[in-house]
Amino acid sequence: MPSANPLSDVPAASAPGSCLALRRVAIDTWRENVAYLHRDCAVYRAEGFQALSKIEVRANGRRILATLNVVDDDALVARDEIGLSTDAFAQLDVSEGHAILVAQAERPASIKALFRKLAGERLIQDEMHAIVRDIVEKRYSKIELTAFVVGCARDELDREEVYFLTQAMAASGQRLDWHEPLVVDKHCIGGIPGNRTSMLVVPIVAAHGLLCPKTSSRAITSPAGTADTMEVLAEVELALPRLQEIVRTHRGCLVWGGTAQLSPADDVLISVERPLSMDSPGQMVASILSKKLAAGSTHLLLDIPLGPSAKVRSMPEAQRLRRLFEYVARRLGLVLDVVITDGSQPIGRGIGPVLEARDAMRVLQCDPAAPTDLREKSLRLAGRMLEFHPDVRGGAGYAIARDILESGRALACMQAIVGAQGARAFDAAHPPVAALSFDVVAGSAGVVVAIDNLHIARIARLAGAPAVQVAGVDLRCKLGDRVAPDTPLYRVYANFPADLEFARQACAKSSGYQIGAAVPPGEALEQS
Amino acid sequence: MPSANPLSDVPAASAPGSCLALRRVAIDTWRENVAYLHRDCAVYRAEGFQALSKIEVRANGRRILATLNVVDDDALVARDEIGLSTDAFAQLDVSEGHAILVAQAERPASIKALFRKLAGERLIQDEMHAIVRDIVEKRYSKIELTAFVVGCARDELDREEVYFLTQAMAASGQRLDWHEPLVVDKHCIGGIPGNRTSMLVVPIVAAHGLLCPKTSSRAITSPAGTADTMEVLAEVELALPRLQEIVRTHRGCLVWGGTAQLSPADDVLISVERPLSMDSPGQMVASILSKKLAAGSTHLLLDIPLGPSAKVRSMPEAQRLRRLFEYVARRLGLVLDVVITDGSQPIGRGIGPVLEARDAMRVLQCDPAAPTDLREKSLRLAGRMLEFHPDVRGGAGYAIARDILESGRALACMQAIVGAQGARAFDAAHPPVAALSFDVVAGSAGVVVAIDNLHIARIARLAGAPAVQVAGVDLRCKLGDRVAPDTPLYRVYANFPADLEFARQACAKSSGYQIGAAVPPGEALEQS
Repeated sequence: MPSANPLSDVPAASAPGSCLALRRVAIDTWRENVAYLHRDCAVYRAEGFQALSKIEVRANGRRILATLNVVDDDALVARDEIGLSTDAFAQLDVSEGHAILVAQAERPASIKALFRKLAGERLIQDEMHAIVRDIVEKRYSKIELTAFVVGCARDELDREEVYFLTQAMAASGQRLDWHEPLVVDKHCIGGIPGNRTSMLVVPIVAAHGLLCPKTSSRAITSPAGTADTMEVLAEVELALPRLQEIVRTHRGCLVWGGTAQLSPADDVLISVERPLSMDSPGQMVASILSKKLAAGSTHLLLDIPLGPSAKVRSMPEAQRLRRLFEYVARRLGLVLDVVITDGSQPIGRGIGPVLEARDAMRVLQCDPAAPTDLREKSLRLAGRMLEFHPDVRGGAGYAIARDILESGRALACMQAIVGAQGARAFDAAHPPVAALSFDVVAGSAGVVVAIDNLHIARIARLAGAPAVQVAGVDLRCKLGDRVAPDTPLYRVYANFPADLEFARQACAKSSGYQIGAAVPPGEALEQS
Repeated sequence: MPSANPLSDVPAASAPGSCLALRRVAIDTWRENVAYLHRDCAVYRAEGFQALSKIEVRANGRRILATLNVVDDDALVARDEIGLSTDAFAQLDVSEGHAILVAQAERPASIKALFRKLAGERLIQDEMHAIVRDIVEKRYSKIELTAFVVGCARDELDREEVYFLTQAMAASGQRLDWHEPLVVDKHCIGGIPGNRTSMLVVPIVAAHGLLCPKTSSRAITSPAGTADTMEVLAEVELALPRLQEIVRTHRGCLVWGGTAQLSPADDVLISVERPLSMDSPGQMVASILSKKLAAGSTHLLLDIPLGPSAKVRSMPEAQRLRRLFEYVARRLGLVLDVVITDGSQPIGRGIGPVLEARDAMRVLQCDPAAPTDLREKSLRLAGRMLEFHPDVRGGAGYAIARDILESGRALACMQAIVGAQGARAFDAAHPPVAALSFDVVAGSAGVVVAIDNLHIARIARLAGAPAVQVAGVDLRCKLGDRVAPDTPLYRVYANFPADLEFARQACAKSSGYQIGAAVPPGEALEQS
């Protein structure tokens, strides 16, 4: 049926002639484009845009969508101006004063696919790609992003859809190619404070000759990411050519992945997943595997910690997650090995960039004060990664890894990488310490029977980590340790009074430790 | 198992002594609290708050939660200041310069219930009340609100949960009591442009003596709400005592419900439902019935329009929605009568406040130019409402309503209400007209076989309605009308060039009309 011819020519009204002048509003709106329009704007009526509360801003052949904020202060934005938040301003890539056209925001083209998902339907490959493209191009508002994340949570995505999503996210940014058949990587799904095994695994496997170009994230909700910890020792924000040269020379690196624009959709999605503490299996798989695929990995060792305050809390859940990872990895042509590890408490002693760097360096230096759990876990993971190599027999990896560590070859490799990336002064025997601190003590006698990963991480975060490198928590007791009422459980370090007070308040609510009855010597301790 | 005593007294650090000075930032962030903190704030590190991107702001014994925006401009917010968006500023109720404490935002207490819902679990009454309370107190960010709305969409709420939600929303604000056993109201679920039956139904039933204190909303995504249209004739924002006096005297009123703070949670939820076009059955029922309950209604007539571009598009869907409304109404002790009406095209001719007021007044004046569909639908609805009265026989309502209209008693009642609310000059025979206009013509010969409610509403909205009272669309043809290629389908009115251009572009994409082959006379027209 033909649509009626819409326009008669008769009473033509003049098109809106005037533009607005662009103004940079120095507000960081955290990955959301915001436009500031005066309520009495000379050209557009702010009220008219309120239905969607989003507008399209055009200049320089570019179009961006922005959430509309209405301004009642001429000093902020004048009547003939339009303001853009710093991020949005940068995307238009024109200078202040540039002529700007404003249009009603059309919904992003993929919104129909989003609505189909919200209605419980299954998305096909093209739809998933269209959604991810619109997300990367910042055409989704926070509200639409949240709807997508919630709509894909739980078991709303089947494994085929998770594969489509992963593929679309990997395709959304740059993709590295190392021109070698074996490019190994390891990744932990997170949630365990102090778990800095990459700092050990990378030099071990690189020392053996495996190519291990490790790109890591900075902390999002945790007190330190591998990139934050490595930054204590060396530069981590390297240009791609420099990075490639280092990897060619030393077979490994430990850098921040952000500069390479790997799976940029992930960074946008995180901005809503984070405040919601949403980490559904589908999103976790897509987030991790898309980054690895984009980084050019061919073989991945995945660490899934299991414990009462870890991300995964039961073995059936861990196995379900493992199978989803394996399915999607196989579809992507990625070789995947999954290890399910003990996530019942933090790994090592230090939590926070400097304290974690100290622990990692002590392991590399074979210092007797090094935390044995960090050492053992790293050797186990490095051993499994070594077995990706066709010449390494199954089961032989651990001994090779231990030899590499104990011979000092891992330390030498780490020193070479640190030097190549741009070393920073750091002495693991005398790490810098924050100005303020307090101890948290056991309060009663007994045995440590539980440590809450989430709460300990929160305390370290409140104390200032990772933004303040020297801030964090240093554990004195771990599971199974006997304590008296005045035994210090851990020390909290902070540089700023406000941070120390925030951490102190959190400790006052709960220490994060549970002290149980002392078990008679020789009897096994049952974990709660 | 006892939690360990958290704090040793030993190395006490000084508490953060200094406060920040409050500043009002004249930015309207549309129902979201936003706090502006300088990146180099003297007291708090903005970075430290980024995990949740939300902070708690305290002053004057009050605490509000606000999304954090980081500012890099001393002129906007200085290093010893904290800025609050206009809405957030008003909530604290202190003046600029007041000393402000900032704390890490704790998640709202009800967030666990929200997470349970997102995990697919069923919420109990207390949980739903806790969520709604936190929403009203603006403790939910846009992201959390969206998660709640999406998590409750589709069939995620069972009917018991919808009842809990409705009850909680009604309890979240003021509740009116008219001290009469029969307080009637009508409501349409919306989606049909021009459907201003309340303007006729209220004076008819009030003229018969039924108590009908009609509180209406303003348009949210439509080109006019009843409150917007009534505002053409009279004041609609009345203080509660004045409103009660008018209702006592005239048995009816037509006012904006916003001043009375009825079900304020609804207004907050709408701020995310609107941009998502989410209108799930559960939310619709809770939104409508909570407002009616809070407004003190005892009997409600509900209009569910059915049509290919209406909110409800199939009879089974309409029946399912009817049953949900009936179940929840019964639990609430509200007498409910549901009518499923023809929603295949706009009602009346005018779309936009002035044009709709013109149509309604012409019906009341028994003007031969009055749109017959608006008249007939209003009489049918008024008749059903009159039958709420125990003395009116089933089926007798329509004739009574018609008598009241034709005798001029409805017009007299409307004039009395308009006078009492504060009349504004308006002449339905010569309504004011917008400065700019253009016609949309049929383009081909045939018969009008479909009119897209959504698209026509969008055009009227783009033209400036309801903010510009005289803007909108005036229909010249309705379903079944025969047209030649140059027959005007409708005229678009706007006051501002930019608005006219936005509307023109929308018309250029599609007129919203479908013209089909002319059917031989006498043959029934099948609706598409």
